[in-house]
Amino acid sequence: MSNKAADAILSGNRLALARLLSQIENADPACRKIQDVLFQHSGKAYLIGISGAPGTGKSTLVNQLIQSFRKPSDNRQPYRVAVVAVDASSPFSGGAVLGDRIRMRSSAGDPGVFIRSMSARGALGGLARTTHEMVDVLDAAGYEIILIETVGVGQSEVDIAALAHTTIIVESPGKGDDVQAIKAGIFEIADIFVINKADRPGVNSTETALRSMLDLSYALKADTAGYAGRGHQIADNEKLDGVTAEESKEGWTPPVLKTIATENQGTEAVIQAVYEHQQHLNESGDKAKREITRLKHELDASIMSTLYQNWQSRMDKDAYHRALDEVVLRNKSPHQAALELLA
Amino acid sequence: MSNKAADAILSGNRLALARLLSQIENADPACRKIQDVLFQHSGKAYLIGISGAPGTGKSTLVNQLIQSFRKPSDNRQPYRVAVVAVDASSPFSGGAVLGDRIRMRSSAGDPGVFIRSMSARGALGGLARTTHEMVDVLDAAGYEIILIETVGVGQSEVDIAALAHTTIIVESPGKGDDVQAIKAGIFEIADIFVINKADRPGVNSTETALRSMLDLSYALKADTAGYAGRGHQIADNEKLDGVTAEESKEGWTPPVLKTIATENQGTEAVIQAVYEHQQHLNESGDKAKREITRLKHELDASIMSTLYQNWQSRMDKDAYHRALDEVVLRNKSPHQAALELLA
Repeated sequence: MSNKAADAILSGNRLALARLLSQIENADPACRKIQDVLFQHSGKAYLIGISGAPGTGKSTLVNQLIQSFRKPSDNRQPYRVAVVAVDASSPFSGGAVLGDRIRMRSSAGDPGVFIRSMSARGALGGLARTTHEMVDVLDAAGYEIILIETVGVGQSEVDIAALAHTTIIVESPGKGDDVQAIKAGIFEIADIFVINKADRPGVNSTETALRSMLDLSYALKADTAGYAGRGHQIADNEKLDGVTAEESKEGWTPPVLKTIATENQGTEAVIQAVYEHQQHLNESGDKAKREITRLKHELDASIMSTLYQNWQSRMDKDAYHRALDEVVLRNKSPHQAALELLA
Repeated sequence: MSNKAADAILSGNRLALARLLSQIENADPACRKIQDVLFQHSGKAYLIGISGAPGTGKSTLVNQLIQSFRKPSDNRQPYRVAVVAVDASSPFSGGAVLGDRIRMRSSAGDPGVFIRSMSARGALGGLARTTHEMVDVLDAAGYEIILIETVGVGQSEVDIAALAHTTIIVESPGKGDDVQAIKAGIFEIADIFVINKADRPGVNSTETALRSMLDLSYALKADTAGYAGRGHQIADNEKLDGVTAEESKEGWTPPVLKTIATENQGTEAVIQAVYEHQQHLNESGDKAKREITRLKHELDASIMSTLYQNWQSRMDKDAYHRALDEVVLRNKSPHQAALELLA
């Protein structure tokens, strides 16, 4: 199977790549064929999820990580790095107005770096699905490290970051109530914790709070065996085939690292922790399990949207509107109306 | 249609109500019939969504709002008030360990108040759907004011709060980078902004930043006519029948209010703003439009999950696993595999 646009992307054409990513964002069915071709070339990239509350300096840290992967302090070859920054700051497309992306300008002109921002509200095919379709394309295009940055600490953001190989959760000190700041469903999905802005007051109490919450979380986890912590959102109805939080954490204790990203302090330790976690995943066989979990999510999301689209294309619009009227009039519950429509 | 559990709930049995809410949270199909009966009694409550980042003091504010609705300063009758607090702080069920709920103890023993916390990861039927099914039940049970509190500023949290009649977004000063703190897809869905902890340093710069971002947001919005701001997440594939952000905002400028919830300062002004917004919705006809939008989401979510469940119940498990294998081996894209499975 060949395809002109896919060939262009595989040979490094950035414009063709950018165009495809826009099509994916717009859920344009015309790009399916290109994606199908490219998918066969994917599966080589290492995916790093980075999530954290606004104001933790995540974007600055991401910028430093890009630089470190591009100019390794040891003798490694520079990696090609892509970033998918998922930003809910609609109506501003991609958050550019708000300055985050401006900080990434230091990578401008570097052909080994590709940065793509996506407004959450712009992702017409659903946030998680769009993100991971983009990741597959960037993977096929030869980017060896893909950073998935999600702005915010909501459920969907954390779930997206959790589908990476290594998930980094960024905190910062002095965000008012320490316990509040670290409470967002992050314990079972974090592989590495980073406390950024570590020169600010309160860094020690943040670290203490984080470590004791971690201990508590692990103690509780022992009581909830079999709970699938990673990426439950998409495949709610079925036990995941892939790895559960407990399994994946076996033999791995998430380190708590401190950084001052604005001064590039501590970034190298974060990179090292990523390498160590990567090695752990390879040795334990968890890397393959995480791959399967991620791809199962993509498959299930495709099945769900195909089912819905098939139904939409053949549904009786009048019957749908009558059903909605019945719900609005409270004559039927949404569930009753759905069952009748699908009968 | 009658039902014993539904009758108990309609006659004020709190235990029966709590049991049903647990069943909804667990996506227990056995409770469908009770919900169907109760749904016919819903449609009377006024829904207030409250969203904001962790640490803004949202829960304290919610607590004060409960008290104000229970003991109105004017001559209004006390309202019956229910709270659905959606909290992503897994693995701790309902966030109780973290102290939020403890602050709500001042309502303990008041039969006119019902508080329900829900862990995001506990919502097996999907977060938005579970929340709104709970709201429908509380509505039927006679709670006249329902506060939908979402912890976090992620897309899903904001979307849930946005499906209320009045959406309140809570900020607080001094959360590091002001511009960062207020950037979370909140502009087009907020009906009322509250800057809580208004006795803290930085309140003026937060207010200035918020107001100028609002101005910018409205200027940009003029360029994006037809964009459906509210609740796009569930029905991605179709233009909503209901109200768009632009339409709903017509004639309503979101006020920016300051509160110190811990000292009950400013709460009354928030309540007054809610009443004013309610009046605006009634007079403009937008209340009905918001109802339709919300119920259309519930209907579409029911259709999607029913389609998926129907498929799951009759699917060939071996074929599914072969399809997943093909995806993992990168022989087929998830989309190709889904199409073949559903062919």
